[in-house]
Amino acid sequence: MRQPGSAPRSRQQQRKERTRAALVRAAQALLAAGKTDVPIVEITQAADVGMGSFYNHFDSKEQLFQAAVTDVFDAYGAVLDSLPEVDDPAETFARSFRLAGRFFRLRPQECRVLLNVGIGPILSERGLAPRALRDIIAANRAGRFHVADPQLALAMAAGTLLALGQLLQDQPERDDAQASDQMAEDLLSIFGVPAEQAREICSRPLPDIAGITAGGSAA
Amino acid sequence: MRQPGSAPRSRQQQRKERTRAALVRAAQALLAAGKTDVPIVEITQAADVGMGSFYNHFDSKEQLFQAAVTDVFDAYGAVLDSLPEVDDPAETFARSFRLAGRFFRLRPQECRVLLNVGIGPILSERGLAPRALRDIIAANRAGRFHVADPQLALAMAAGTLLALGQLLQDQPERDDAQASDQMAEDLLSIFGVPAEQAREICSRPLPDIAGITAGGSAA
Repeated sequence: MRQPGSAPRSRQQQRKERTRAALVRAAQALLAAGKTDVPIVEITQAADVGMGSFYNHFDSKEQLFQAAVTDVFDAYGAVLDSLPEVDDPAETFARSFRLAGRFFRLRPQECRVLLNVGIGPILSERGLAPRALRDIIAANRAGRFHVADPQLALAMAAGTLLALGQLLQDQPERDDAQASDQMAEDLLSIFGVPAEQAREICSRPLPDIAGITAGGSAA
Repeated sequence: MRQPGSAPRSRQQQRKERTRAALVRAAQALLAAGKTDVPIVEITQAADVGMGSFYNHFDSKEQLFQAAVTDVFDAYGAVLDSLPEVDDPAETFARSFRLAGRFFRLRPQECRVLLNVGIGPILSERGLAPRALRDIIAANRAGRFHVADPQLALAMAAGTLLALGQLLQDQPERDDAQASDQMAEDLLSIFGVPAEQAREICSRPLPDIAGITAGGSAA
């Protein structure tokens, strides 16, 4: 839908965006399958776009894969940003973790992308990490967390989330909501929230993300 | 050195072992550099062995890379197994985590291998994971830990360790001992050890691993 005040996008512009999105989706499928060792022509064929179109958007295969990962993080970030604000930064942090844990089953391809690219990008400046760091610092300031080193706390949360994704992939029968909530509760406790309170915060109802995430990324 | 009672290894056997170790080292260097997208001939050249030798040891490039990762885990595991036993399984768990955190700086190439292969192999049946799971279960049984779901606890510890490795790589100025001990202390607290005790356990002196690890893996 057109934003009020913005110029209508030309047909050419729309076509360009569709081409880029198709390339990003093809790259995400390859990342999820762990098959990045392919020539560019295979990617353009999978995306059903011409070889020349590739270089209108990306300088190299590496740049496309980077964009494909960034797209996953931006999609997660957009979902979190769309949620109603809550007053307690400890709850904001917990809610993001609990939802991110549930994303793994709701968006299995993106989950496999994250598992295959590893911890480095998860600690990067896109997606969940900057939001989690912001929440940790805000919770510290509000006296809700007592974290001496927010970057160490962020690393612990990010590593825990990645390991949760792997566990949920390896054990399809595991209850994702229960595992996510347990880990969020443990993190809150480490960060200084009293145990009883941590448990209560992590059992609060969550916004309905199934509806929010139905569109998927690179749409 | 020859094990007492074992047959002397023939020259041919020794040569075979050297060739395999050279291939494994070359594969670890490529994994550490994130450059696994190379033809086999480049690996044999880097290892300074003939192309034919490759297939005496491995069926495929994937099998070699798998062996290269397994070798890292086995080397870590061998170091842990060589340490004197302690009575308290909570301390055993903490000691392994604190040492593993220090390995990252002592063995930077192996660290990069682990960071590049991701969380999946770390939760696998080699190396740290089976030992950590054993220690968690033993500590539960001894009433030192109160962990409802040992696999969830293991995932949290493994993800935290991987994120610590990334943090230590990204921030060369960060104190690895302090960060490792802090995270180990946090994990003990989550697993049910009283905070004061967790701190004390994680400030006990550690065995000198600099000497133990000097040989490196694939030796």
